[in-house]
Amino acid sequence: MTSGITLWFTGVPASGKSAIARRVRELLAARGLPVELLDGPEVRQSLSRGLGFTREDREENVRRIGYVAKLLSRNGVIAICAAVSPYRATREEIRQHVSNFVEIFVDCPLEVAERRDTEGLYAKARAGVIEDFTGVSDPYERPEKPEVYIRSDEESIEQSAAKVVKTLELLQLIPQVDDGFPDADDLRRRLRGLGYI
Amino acid sequence: MTSGITLWFTGVPASGKSAIARRVRELLAARGLPVELLDGPEVRQSLSRGLGFTREDREENVRRIGYVAKLLSRNGVIAICAAVSPYRATREEIRQHVSNFVEIFVDCPLEVAERRDTEGLYAKARAGVIEDFTGVSDPYERPEKPEVYIRSDEESIEQSAAKVVKTLELLQLIPQVDDGFPDADDLRRRLRGLGYI
Repeated sequence: MTSGITLWFTGVPASGKSAIARRVRELLAARGLPVELLDGPEVRQSLSRGLGFTREDREENVRRIGYVAKLLSRNGVIAICAAVSPYRATREEIRQHVSNFVEIFVDCPLEVAERRDTEGLYAKARAGVIEDFTGVSDPYERPEKPEVYIRSDEESIEQSAAKVVKTLELLQLIPQVDDGFPDADDLRRRLRGLGYI
Repeated sequence: MTSGITLWFTGVPASGKSAIARRVRELLAARGLPVELLDGPEVRQSLSRGLGFTREDREENVRRIGYVAKLLSRNGVIAICAAVSPYRATREEIRQHVSNFVEIFVDCPLEVAERRDTEGLYAKARAGVIEDFTGVSDPYERPEKPEVYIRSDEESIEQSAAKVVKTLELLQLIPQVDDGFPDADDLRRRLRGLGYI
């Protein structure tokens, strides 16, 4: 049994993590790779019913996702996780415990995310209904060395998802497929600069 | 990717589920099979911090174990779950959602379990500190058609664990190994009687 991968999407609420994560799942599944998506809302329903949005509850939610990702990835599965996960220390803790942690920073200016927010979370945070809301009343700690850097307000979902998949190839975590991805050299330079390849 | 298995140990608190489950894990791992143990206390720490022992909280805990077992077993892993899981309906619900559900009923007279209880849970239940405690103040609904039936006060852990593994062979869920297990014919008759083979 080869090791799996933990793909960890992080970014402020409504930055576009879920949409990219879903597309990445499709692309990997189409290659016949075993993949599971642990997405915020579904995971909250399945693992974290009763938890709220305080710092402590959000941290607990993120740790639970990390625990399940550990179980899956050490059994050869690609666990795709999409959660705000605003604290660097928690993300690094998860990196230590799972197989082949790949951090994907979905960067997006706050005003764009807020405009996009279909769930109305930012509005609730501005109104004070949700306390400690990431980006509004609680910090988002940007990743320092994410394996993949995405600007979701400047790239299409398709471009972002392709970047993630190509990065997995460059990191030699999945077999290479020659699909003519245009920016492979940029990604390679970036990963080399970060010391990942 | 072949389907995995969900091995579901059920029985009153301190009936011996965890000890047998741990030994089954060892036996399966020694055969090179991918296996994960989701055991009550560890799972409570990782997935269910904050949940108590009310009926509702215990049900939620069991459902979370079932959710993780679903993710693991549909990716080829043998998920071994050990939880009291006293309600038949919840166990049947999990059977519907996971791959190859195998129910293992660890039967044990209540007075034996209570004598054995190292965590002091029965004492707390008798004292009224824990309400709705299975076997004391809340019912345990015995499985009607468990794939494996264990009398933990009459069998050794080694015998019980071997029965579980041999049953998986008879159900053709794992490859057969000729290890001279003495009661294979009894198990076969039992499984045939229940309509499982």
